[in-house]
Amino acid sequence: MEQTPNTQTITPKTSTIDESRFERGSRALAEIDGSSGAEVVASLADIAPDLGRYIIEFGFGDIYSRPGLALREREIATIAALTAMGTATPQLKVHIHAGLNVGLTREEIVEIMIQMSAYAGFPAALNGVFAAKEVFANHA
Amino acid sequence: MEQTPNTQTITPKTSTIDESRFERGSRALAEIDGSSGAEVVASLADIAPDLGRYIIEFGFGDIYSRPGLALREREIATIAALTAMGTATPQLKVHIHAGLNVGLTREEIVEIMIQMSAYAGFPAALNGVFAAKEVFANHA
Amino acid sequence: MEQTPNTQTITPKTSTIDESRFERGSRALAEIDGSSGAEVVASLADIAPDLGRYIIEFGFGDIYSRPGLALREREIATIAALTAMGTATPQLKVHIHAGLNVGLTREEIVEIMIQMSAYAGFPAALNGVFAAKEVFANHA
Amino acid sequence: MEQTPNTQTITPKTSTIDESRFERGSRALAEIDGSSGAEVVASLADIAPDLGRYIIEFGFGDIYSRPGLALREREIATIAALTAMGTATPQLKVHIHAGLNVGLTREEIVEIMIQMSAYAGFPAALNGVFAAKEVFANHA
Amino acid sequence: MEQTPNTQTITPKTSTIDESRFERGSRALAEIDGSSGAEVVASLADIAPDLGRYIIEFGFGDIYSRPGLALREREIATIAALTAMGTATPQLKVHIHAGLNVGLTREEIVEIMIQMSAYAGFPAALNGVFAAKEVFANHA
Amino acid sequence: MEQTPNTQTITPKTSTIDESRFERGSRALAEIDGSSGAEVVASLADIAPDLGRYIIEFGFGDIYSRPGLALREREIATIAALTAMGTATPQLKVHIHAGLNVGLTREEIVEIMIQMSAYAGFPAALNGVFAAKEVFANHA
Repeated sequence: MEQTPNTQTITPKTSTIDESRFERGSRALAEIDGSSGAEVVASLADIAPDLGRYIIEFGFGDIYSRPGLALREREIATIAALTAMGTATPQLKVHIHAGLNVGLTREEIVEIMIQMSAYAGFPAALNGVFAAKEVFANHA
Repeated sequence: MEQTPNTQTITPKTSTIDESRFERGSRALAEIDGSSGAEVVASLADIAPDLGRYIIEFGFGDIYSRPGLALREREIATIAALTAMGTATPQLKVHIHAGLNVGLTREEIVEIMIQMSAYAGFPAALNGVFAAKEVFANHA
Repeated sequence: MEQTPNTQTITPKTSTIDESRFERGSRALAEIDGSSGAEVVASLADIAPDLGRYIIEFGFGDIYSRPGLALREREIATIAALTAMGTATPQLKVHIHAGLNVGLTREEIVEIMIQMSAYAGFPAALNGVFAAKEVFANHA
Repeated sequence: MEQTPNTQTITPKTSTIDESRFERGSRALAEIDGSSGAEVVASLADIAPDLGRYIIEFGFGDIYSRPGLALREREIATIAALTAMGTATPQLKVHIHAGLNVGLTREEIVEIMIQMSAYAGFPAALNGVFAAKEVFANHA
Repeated sequence: MEQTPNTQTITPKTSTIDESRFERGSRALAEIDGSSGAEVVASLADIAPDLGRYIIEFGFGDIYSRPGLALREREIATIAALTAMGTATPQLKVHIHAGLNVGLTREEIVEIMIQMSAYAGFPAALNGVFAAKEVFANHA
Repeated sequence: MEQTPNTQTITPKTSTIDESRFERGSRALAEIDGSSGAEVVASLADIAPDLGRYIIEFGFGDIYSRPGLALREREIATIAALTAMGTATPQLKVHIHAGLNVGLTREEIVEIMIQMSAYAGFPAALNGVFAAKEVFANHA
């Protein structure tokens, strides 16, 4: 008989209900992305509201609310990854905005993209910089 | 003043606590992946137990437990995506195994990979087929 | 002397001429994509007509005409793969349209994209949903 | 009523039967890849023989048999693409071997990979060079 | 004690100062890309001038100035790679233009893209051809 | 006549010769990667020594030596990007090692990978964590 490893050795968080993940995530989303993230979620309301809920609950309520890294460091990680991937320009723009919100300077954001040229090539770095240029132009 | 779109228009699931997402996810994981998925989660216990928890809660408790598609169809989607991406061979193998568990035949799994040659090229299709060959050899 | 494995052990289809692959492919293309696929092929006429011919002959005459999976399942696979890859938005839109043509509901198409968030991340799922939103708006 | 653009304006090749695409492709495969390509096709015989047939018919009978580029140039294109993609190491090795067969020198193959560092980053170039090192070591 | 392999066994170019890499790169950029490349670099002046400098110094002064491959062959490699990657449409257009500048015909450029359908799928080939169509229309 | 934008408005670094980029890069490489990076460069000596030189000069002498971000932050960016890309496992391992060298804790490195699950999916995060597990096991 097939023996299933016991996943119960992982202790689930016991007292947190989904609503609080949603509330915690909504707070984190507002703090980090300002209105940009909420606009994305709102644009899902008529087609995929659950995807919006998962982004808030899992992306922000679970992941971004974890204590292990500073928000500034989390945004460095996300901006680097989305720049290198090259398939997520709208989301990269949201996170460039978010990076500014949590204290990264424009120069630091551009610095991340320049660094990506060594890991993902010049086109990825260029497209990242042009996304940043667009966000910076719309950011008072 | 910046006006934040009201994310509260998304109604969060109110009575589901995290434990039940974990329990629902563990059941789904066992049904779909048999021991393979649980082994992956177990292998995370000493380094990233929370990632294992998220895979169970979000991946299986939230996503795979949704009613909108049959499990057979969900595995077609996942096998197609992982074959096309080409960056997730270990996870593709888990899902080839899962596909067999939820009723896909070997021929159907290979058929998905052949189809991917048109969308992601012959190398992606070939690497998918070779992963399938390995899983089939170990599957009674 | 280098010994070449005998590829002749693969029995080629003997009586099918290219014209019938083209005809079979054209029929499949019309059935699956309606006018969208044919428009893509037509747009290649002045620059790369052979690429259009290969899409019809190989993509539709060979691959989509195979009996191993239902058209509905083939579209699930393609929509999932293109959403996860994130590099093929115009083709994803053609296949969202095709999915509707072969019987997938809007909810099922969105469901595939939500599922992709677990395998390719939220940006891939979001861009897939936004492509769907655009196609749905233009689909009577 | 939906008007389908007339795909018949593309003139299909009329007198070529599938067998000759297969024969032409087998000849091209042997000329270009020597035994490596045929081994790949042979390894598909028990699991996905049609995929092997498509690689020969479409990949080699259709594409590589086209007159528009010299074989040497076609291998430059393929080696560059597979190095940049980074998801197709086994196929890259087959084409490094093929490149040597059609007249590229080891230095030229390495040169392609060095160039890729500017477009896909140092990791892609490094993994390409290490694949080449392995092929060169096994190539008399 | 950790023993570091001696990187000094690599003989650095001794008499080349950065200025000459920049000058050599600027000449190569002008020869290859004509105005397109320089426009990209110029558009970086107010946000990431150093990235522009690196593209000239490393991309063109180091890489493209190497003797190991003809410029025509280097552009075949780059056009193939960017078409297959699918994440760098603006840079692909610059290099389609560059390919024409160094002697590739329109037919040869399209041929590279058709070949990519076998390695990266039809969507990559299609998006490459549509980028070429746009560049050709603007190229006297 | 085609007017080329004047790239000379970018002031090149005037007094830095290649040797000092190489020396500065070698120092940075040793500081950041310890022996791992130098081993990679050494392994290129017999096949692509110039690629090793470019990694040192451009990757470390130019990029990593820039003042705009702390080394700790640069490694967060690189670990995030390589985890999300999923095509550079050997290089990810070198940078997990490098991350530990510049002060990231094991927990912080795992935290970056958990975060990537939201942006690049669970398979990317899992493969990142398994790479980390291997590096941690070999790191005193």
